Amino acid sequence: MANKRVAVIGASGYGGLQTLRLLHQHPALDISFLGGERSSGKRWSELVPFLPLAGDPVVQTPDPDAIAAAADYAVLSLPNGLAAQLVPPLLQRGVRVVDLSADYRFSSLGRWQEVYASEALEVPRSDDDLCAEAVYGLPEWEADAIRTARLIAAPGCFPTASLLGLLPFLNQGLIDTTGIVIDAKTGTSGGGRAAKEHLLLAECSEAVAPYGVVGHRHTSEIEQLASRVAGHEIQLQFTPHLMPMVRGLLATVYCRLRDPGLTAEDCVTLLASAYRQAPCVEVLPVGTYPSTKWVRQTNRALLSVQVDRRTGQLIVMAAIDNLVKGQAGQGVQCLNLMAGLEPTAGLPLLPFYP
Amino acid sequence: MANKRVAVIGASGYGGLQTLRLLHQHPALDISFLGGERSSGKRWSELVPFLPLAGDPVVQTPDPDAIAAAADYAVLSLPNGLAAQLVPPLLQRGVRVVDLSADYRFSSLGRWQEVYASEALEVPRSDDDLCAEAVYGLPEWEADAIRTARLIAAPGCFPTASLLGLLPFLNQGLIDTTGIVIDAKTGTSGGGRAAKEHLLLAECSEAVAPYGVVGHRHTSEIEQLASRVAGHEIQLQFTPHLMPMVRGLLATVYCRLRDPGLTAEDCVTLLASAYRQAPCVEVLPVGTYPSTKWVRQTNRALLSVQVDRRTGQLIVMAAIDNLVKGQAGQGVQCLNLMAGLEPTAGLPLLPFYP
Amino acid sequence: MANKRVAVIGASGYGGLQTLRLLHQHPALDISFLGGERSSGKRWSELVPFLPLAGDPVVQTPDPDAIAAAADYAVLSLPNGLAAQLVPPLLQRGVRVVDLSADYRFSSLGRWQEVYASEALEVPRSDDDLCAEAVYGLPEWEADAIRTARLIAAPGCFPTASLLGLLPFLNQGLIDTTGIVIDAKTGTSGGGRAAKEHLLLAECSEAVAPYGVVGHRHTSEIEQLASRVAGHEIQLQFTPHLMPMVRGLLATVYCRLRDPGLTAEDCVTLLASAYRQAPCVEVLPVGTYPSTKWVRQTNRALLSVQVDRRTGQLIVMAAIDNLVKGQAGQGVQCLNLMAGLEPTAGLPLLPFYP
Amino acid sequence: MANKRVAVIGASGYGGLQTLRLLHQHPALDISFLGGERSSGKRWSELVPFLPLAGDPVVQTPDPDAIAAAADYAVLSLPNGLAAQLVPPLLQRGVRVVDLSADYRFSSLGRWQEVYASEALEVPRSDDDLCAEAVYGLPEWEADAIRTARLIAAPGCFPTASLLGLLPFLNQGLIDTTGIVIDAKTGTSGGGRAAKEHLLLAECSEAVAPYGVVGHRHTSEIEQLASRVAGHEIQLQFTPHLMPMVRGLLATVYCRLRDPGLTAEDCVTLLASAYRQAPCVEVLPVGTYPSTKWVRQTNRALLSVQVDRRTGQLIVMAAIDNLVKGQAGQGVQCLNLMAGLEPTAGLPLLPFYP
Repeated sequence: MANKRVAVIGASGYGGLQTLRLLHQHPALDISFLGGERSSGKRWSELVPFLPLAGDPVVQTPDPDAIAAAADYAVLSLPNGLAAQLVPPLLQRGVRVVDLSADYRFSSLGRWQEVYASEALEVPRSDDDLCAEAVYGLPEWEADAIRTARLIAAPGCFPTASLLGLLPFLNQGLIDTTGIVIDAKTGTSGGGRAAKEHLLLAECSEAVAPYGVVGHRHTSEIEQLASRVAGHEIQLQFTPHLMPMVRGLLATVYCRLRDPGLTAEDCVTLLASAYRQAPCVEVLPVGTYPSTKWVRQTNRALLSVQVDRRTGQLIVMAAIDNLVKGQAGQGVQCLNLMAGLEPTAGLPLLPFYP
Repeated sequence: MANKRVAVIGASGYGGLQTLRLLHQHPALDISFLGGERSSGKRWSELVPFLPLAGDPVVQTPDPDAIAAAADYAVLSLPNGLAAQLVPPLLQRGVRVVDLSADYRFSSLGRWQEVYASEALEVPRSDDDLCAEAVYGLPEWEADAIRTARLIAAPGCFPTASLLGLLPFLNQGLIDTTGIVIDAKTGTSGGGRAAKEHLLLAECSEAVAPYGVVGHRHTSEIEQLASRVAGHEIQLQFTPHLMPMVRGLLATVYCRLRDPGLTAEDCVTLLASAYRQAPCVEVLPVGTYPSTKWVRQTNRALLSVQVDRRTGQLIVMAAIDNLVKGQAGQGVQCLNLMAGLEPTAGLPLLPFYP
Repeated sequence: MANKRVAVIGASGYGGLQTLRLLHQHPALDISFLGGERSSGKRWSELVPFLPLAGDPVVQTPDPDAIAAAADYAVLSLPNGLAAQLVPPLLQRGVRVVDLSADYRFSSLGRWQEVYASEALEVPRSDDDLCAEAVYGLPEWEADAIRTARLIAAPGCFPTASLLGLLPFLNQGLIDTTGIVIDAKTGTSGGGRAAKEHLLLAECSEAVAPYGVVGHRHTSEIEQLASRVAGHEIQLQFTPHLMPMVRGLLATVYCRLRDPGLTAEDCVTLLASAYRQAPCVEVLPVGTYPSTKWVRQTNRALLSVQVDRRTGQLIVMAAIDNLVKGQAGQGVQCLNLMAGLEPTAGLPLLPFYP
Repeated sequence: MANKRVAVIGASGYGGLQTLRLLHQHPALDISFLGGERSSGKRWSELVPFLPLAGDPVVQTPDPDAIAAAADYAVLSLPNGLAAQLVPPLLQRGVRVVDLSADYRFSSLGRWQEVYASEALEVPRSDDDLCAEAVYGLPEWEADAIRTARLIAAPGCFPTASLLGLLPFLNQGLIDTTGIVIDAKTGTSGGGRAAKEHLLLAECSEAVAPYGVVGHRHTSEIEQLASRVAGHEIQLQFTPHLMPMVRGLLATVYCRLRDPGLTAEDCVTLLASAYRQAPCVEVLPVGTYPSTKWVRQTNRALLSVQVDRRTGQLIVMAAIDNLVKGQAGQGVQCLNLMAGLEPTAGLPLLPFYP
């Protein structure tokens, strides 16, 4: 079977760089188009001397016709609001799309507009139908829909880790759905490659700080799928913290078990069962807690649980690489499903340690 | 008034180094004795070439008579279990003691033994009376008792940050005392200077991980004072996480407001009022969240609050330097009170940034 | 004697923040004016919530008359080219100036223009006389001139470390003046606080790289004073490298001893003698090599030497904090001399370790 | 063709972990034996939960008969001195060996003993013949000998980077062979996984320091091959520095061009020509300087040159990952040659950036 052709749009940001790195060694997917507005016309090696691509392609303006002529699939790694301009014409031309931005993560345009109200859009959106059609690209929970989807909204990094830990318990009705607390920790690469003072090494090295306390956008994204899986509306507490490291994301989830007799071992069994078919998720034995370093530069999610018999609380810990399982790797995992490949094709699962 | 003389025992660990650094520039306290078992007989400059002390003293065996002859006060920076051997003879000889270890942090020996059961003691303890007598060295809540105490048990780093954030709300009965979650993040210097594989830079750089999930010893220490201030027994969830940085500690505390009408501004007012007389605590305005970098190498604690109207939760954030306000600086703050000095004498409050 | 009044212009960059931190605790100098163009009119606490200054002053437009009315001295922490606009009117009004920029580091305007040709000046300079008058603010070599100077050009961070290591050997004619190699390593804070992609934590963490190889501007600055002290023109090799850390600078200097019989111990003796009167310079014993961490947030320079009998080479190592002894601390050291104070007044010499 | 079987001895140190990670995904080499003294009898997943190997093998005592029964090749990742006990019996049994230690890097036992005099050997060595037979495993310079060798001594990390940069110029007689200076910078993982105080994150974060100044063992290793390629004895200056990062190594080499007319472009052409057949070496264009981050977790070496017309000096910069091209990856590259495979089989050449 001939390899499928993939366009990568927005190639020199961190999401794009990861996508290219993964596709470059992929056994069944080829990079067939490199798109970027600002760097259009430049040779790749001039832009990124340290990531040589076969043939040293020239970056092209992301014109829908050109993309459709060159590619079966497109991965969009663009700022929020820009993907929504490119997605409709690409779908019209038969290109199936994995969008790494937040543009199609909500099932209605209205909800998106509420959450992303502050984004200044140059072109107003009216694609409520595509918001409804887009499949949320969390393969462990949406595999069937992903396989046939035209449009994938790849989840945010925080939602990926949080939901992988929470959903099995919500699905089985094992926890109180009020009072859930997600305390999340992320490396600075989640803030992107554009220069920002607060992401300078001098500013964020030797520093840990919360941000977006109450109301961070990923709260709504987590609540949307959590509510659907639980079968009723859930409101939860989500607090991200910036860590002095490049990549890696840990979500520590606190909730209350409905059945106080459940043990940590029971919960491990439940998680292992929920993810039996999920080759990118691994459940650690009780007492072993995940380090973000154990999943660095892999598409793996590590889950661990602990139960406090005194307080009745369940603590779920989930570690991922924010740029791989939390972004580009998840996108490739979706592409694999869409193209009828093994879900882990081309995806690294073992870290280089340390 | 002549300067008071202070013995520092256990000088070359991180707690000792901070204590010496602070006392060396202290306007009213002098280092009069340097004690250490392993390095006894050595010149200080051989041990620590980068922290020259006036007169380049020789480290001495921590003999109680020698200490009592040389010093009015002693700061003990020793592993858990060792301080308890030195404290009784020092008190007998009239030396007032600030103990940076956990040996006297619980009000009964029985409680200490439950929590620190795993410590292999060479000499069995029978000093239940001293456990009862020792004053918990959190100056913002125990200033009067500290001033006249013979024996101070300086709090752990996690309890310091957690309690400074929680106590005003417990004291006023404003929060539910069930379901309290403390998610804490610390730099690796809290693990001490002894070589341990998991604290190697190669292991903990670019890594975030939880540890001691459920049952960490600081849980009991936090609960002891929290319960006393609240007026009833409290059990809470405390989870520490190791951060890829040297120093700094952030506690993010989640709890539920009893009165859903309270705003973040109300809570700031309450905190500011509670700490009006506390020169080492600063309350940030609503929407400004503390970075550990803002307090690095200072004796300051920064507090911030946020309220989620949707969920009714109060989030309290507290940042300290784990080795200064979380350890040695707090010890010096106690010494200041014991010696009748200004609480902030000799203590840095402003960071070198970045 | 009343405290002297100091204006700090350019207060919220890293140089300004260090200067304020040092002056805030200075026993004989007061901050009397806070100047900044962009932040003019704002309260200090709004700009920098973590460094509370007494009275929470308002930042003011750096008008020469206003500065002269408020201050005896001014420390300018401005981008290259801007100081040269402010210095002439300040000197005219009797304000003595310490300039932390490069504007007056060369003894002629022509030389400055050659080296800093790429700076786009809004206002052309014609102050060749001030270039000639300005004293190079390296107190260990220019103390007498500094005491009476109207205008100090504080040295760059790389020149400070390199020259402190090299000058005693050049002064005594002990080394070949051809073939000198300076391999220097610096933290990222030397690049300033303005947002730049290559200084993001995600970019420069876990990365070491050379930059400015051949022709870095500090080469000329080092050569100027090295040549003067040696008594003839010297051309040397200077290569800076960016380190994954915030602060600290190490210069490793390679040169050839003229007398192959000189030992490392001889060289230590020579250095110790050269810096006998220099309280901020410390010479380490043979075999002890300086870590930048040993001088972090201090105004100390640590020097060490080693000699290779096989190759005849002398290796001189010099460690400083790039923002203190390499910038703001050196500026305060100059102010101390200008004001007739002890050179180390208000300057930290001991690090908080680790 | 059936895959070749490889034994990895010393699997849980950093060298072993990298080797396993690389072999696990290798298309033509299989891990057939996992050897370790201390962890003998344990399941791999208990030792290293984050690097799951197919079949979760049990670690075995490294008995020569057992190894020979299971494997065609053995990679030894053992402390210096221990490999020399295992190599003779393995060779006798027909197992071809890649030794990552220093035991066979010198062409005579006498030379090894001079350089490694301080190693306390439990078993005295008498294998001078094997020292003479062993091939130095730098594939870019010894490919033919490696293909047929029974015993490979994989080079040290510093020699790999230094020699790749220097040898083409020595080979062509283009530089003075006196006065060569190599200033090298390495991450802390080069110090291994055993707990050592000076490698704690708290000690080496925010710190840069030289070590082993004059007489570091890698000096002799570099000089041995440099001398052979130059055709006469060379003595050079080598100074390593410890960087606050996990992995990565940069060598900055200073030497003097014999022909002052040579330009940086000429030198790039020469290097590119020398490494035309070397798929793991890439020469950067003039003005682009290598970051260790660009080669992280790859088997690539990046070279760059600059020439200072004023001083006549050539500066060669070489960046590698100290644990991949500087250790385990180089070992696999040798295995590939020995097994008649493509030199880059199974070796990552592109980094995950950032």
